[in-house]
Amino acid sequence: MTPSLVIENARTEAGAIVSLILANDRIAAIGPNAAAGIDPAVPRFDAAGGLLCHPFVDGHIHLDKTLIGLPFIPHIPGDTVAKRIEAEKSLRRTVSLSVEARGGALLERLAAYGTLSVRSHVDIDTEVGLKGLEAVLSLKQSHGHLVDIQTVAFPQSGVLRDPGTAGLLDAAIAAGADLVGGLDPAGIDNDVTGHLDAIFAVAGKYGVGLDIHLHDGGALGAFELRQIADRTVALGLEGKVVVSHAFCLGELGDADFGRTAAVLARSGVAIMTSAPGPVPMPPVKRLAAAGVRCFCANDNIRDAWSPFGNGDMLERVGILCDRQDLRSDEDLAAAFRLATLAPAEILGRPVGSLQAGSPADFNILPAASLAEAVAARPLDRTVFRGGAIIARGGRLIV
Amino acid sequence: MTPSLVIENARTEAGAIVSLILANDRIAAIGPNAAAGIDPAVPRFDAAGGLLCHPFVDGHIHLDKTLIGLPFIPHIPGDTVAKRIEAEKSLRRTVSLSVEARGGALLERLAAYGTLSVRSHVDIDTEVGLKGLEAVLSLKQSHGHLVDIQTVAFPQSGVLRDPGTAGLLDAAIAAGADLVGGLDPAGIDNDVTGHLDAIFAVAGKYGVGLDIHLHDGGALGAFELRQIADRTVALGLEGKVVVSHAFCLGELGDADFGRTAAVLARSGVAIMTSAPGPVPMPPVKRLAAAGVRCFCANDNIRDAWSPFGNGDMLERVGILCDRQDLRSDEDLAAAFRLATLAPAEILGRPVGSLQAGSPADFNILPAASLAEAVAARPLDRTVFRGGAIIARGGRLIV
Repeated sequence: MTPSLVIENARTEAGAIVSLILANDRIAAIGPNAAAGIDPAVPRFDAAGGLLCHPFVDGHIHLDKTLIGLPFIPHIPGDTVAKRIEAEKSLRRTVSLSVEARGGALLERLAAYGTLSVRSHVDIDTEVGLKGLEAVLSLKQSHGHLVDIQTVAFPQSGVLRDPGTAGLLDAAIAAGADLVGGLDPAGIDNDVTGHLDAIFAVAGKYGVGLDIHLHDGGALGAFELRQIADRTVALGLEGKVVVSHAFCLGELGDADFGRTAAVLARSGVAIMTSAPGPVPMPPVKRLAAAGVRCFCANDNIRDAWSPFGNGDMLERVGILCDRQDLRSDEDLAAAFRLATLAPAEILGRPVGSLQAGSPADFNILPAASLAEAVAARPLDRTVFRGGAIIARGGRLIV
Repeated sequence: MTPSLVIENARTEAGAIVSLILANDRIAAIGPNAAAGIDPAVPRFDAAGGLLCHPFVDGHIHLDKTLIGLPFIPHIPGDTVAKRIEAEKSLRRTVSLSVEARGGALLERLAAYGTLSVRSHVDIDTEVGLKGLEAVLSLKQSHGHLVDIQTVAFPQSGVLRDPGTAGLLDAAIAAGADLVGGLDPAGIDNDVTGHLDAIFAVAGKYGVGLDIHLHDGGALGAFELRQIADRTVALGLEGKVVVSHAFCLGELGDADFGRTAAVLARSGVAIMTSAPGPVPMPPVKRLAAAGVRCFCANDNIRDAWSPFGNGDMLERVGILCDRQDLRSDEDLAAAFRLATLAPAEILGRPVGSLQAGSPADFNILPAASLAEAVAARPLDRTVFRGGAIIARGGRLIV
């Protein structure tokens, strides 16, 4: 191997101070003495004792919805989800910047914060058709050097409620979307069986996974979760299905929680939470203890659904910890992994420890431990992608 | 007047682009044409269209508790408030940096974020006596050029539960503390009447206000709130009493909420919330509609109670909005004022609009409106104190 960069004075999660030798886009060696004997002419980077961490994975965003790149647009309140869907469609018709420009601006911001892999839901409905998807797929070409992009064909306006959408979901997968989406079978489509029939049919046809938005609450939401788990097993899709939000898991009594969590664990259905401010949410520590895989993601970042969000996964993890009263070092470190290793595995891109042979994709954070990183949330981080520094201090430098 | 600085291209809350003429520590003139005819030799600052805002007021912090300035210390979990009080005392005995150093480091960070006035609770108990207070009072000398400091004599270990504390609270006011504190008359001291008798006696003797920590929940907390309001009126302390936290206000049925809010409004008892993550909290919009004065503050910033917090009031306001589902421009602007005008008035330091004659203490934020400032939470702000720039981009430059 030909060393391309030597990183000195980096700290592993276990606390050891090590050097890394990068050879182009790979870690060629890592260890306390890895730099010994390396040609002094090879460029060097002093990590100054900073923590070597896996890059962030944002497993639930909406690249087509974001308004990043535009002047601030006041939030249009809507009492019901249906009203907010209409408000968003109305805004979408008039917004003056393309999905490519807005989504690209968001990807650049994410990369600047150290997020190198995302799953983006993309609206599919009978008005927009596949246009949003095509735009997001084009971002793989224009921004794939910064961030890996996975796409979900997301029926934001419902499937049965917007006739023709099921066919569009099928066409979306054929056009390159990675997963089939879904949305509140009861709350939006008023037909749990009909909605799930439609989306699982597309997933089964192509052998792809699903990632379903579920806001329906309490016993209703729990019923839908169990229906989704049963269908996952029936179609042999274990490990390939995610339910996003699943607010209901924060509202159940012990018995209902227990039987729902058991079904999710058995079927390998994973749960995504953005740790929303005003509503209940899945308790990640309790779910993990029940064997349910969870991850954390940003969801809406400055769009028609929320004026908030900056894309920083480290901030999102901190919000999750604050909301779920996770404060010990052990809990904070586990929460950090909900933004790195856990979503990487759930998105089908498992990564091992950072070792010789690993891709040279990682962050160096000014912290002595994962717990401190979550608590202090430093912006002053260094982002490595493909063996090169692409961002420092929250700003892209490529 | 002799102009000391000209600020050009600043945006008022109403959206007008204005210039400001500063004369030492005052605004001498403000208006679209204020800079006309000013000697070109006077230094100029280009606000680049940034928003001119009142400085932040952090009306509830703990300068003596913060661990800022030390390496990260893992959080010590404790199931009960009593256990956490003991854990904190144990930590306090061994921490290697003085209150002056830690509190000073926090004040510098607050000023860097644009907070120019604080109210700090300071632990008073039979172990630490007045030592913490003396240290915090010394910060008025060392850091008063950055931040105005008000102090509350806070019986963190209880009053009746730690005999001798009532006398120390009296001595604390005599020594220069501005207000008498209190803590969960039921939950900590197990004696609502006895606790309130003790702390109101000190307040009545010196004619000072009170600021009482109240975590007791539901109907119990609401009962204590009404007791506090009644005593406030009886002693003529209307407008001088704050209850901090008051989680119970987020848990009441309509009838109990209504009668409790009415009593608070009549007595001028104000409510502070830090928008805590895992527990209910006072609904600020509903309380404002009922005539109750509220404000928002950071509370614990990296201390034995929480590993989180960075001191940025703009972030704290964003957390409040996220938790209470405040998203419209009007709601976001109202929330911003919970961190500026509202606490200024409640702390007894009312400020008017930024106009000729006002102190030259303000922030300039890269945003077109208060709503955008809350949503985007820019770190790239410029902080003016006494007519001079003291911080930019979240870093002190003095």
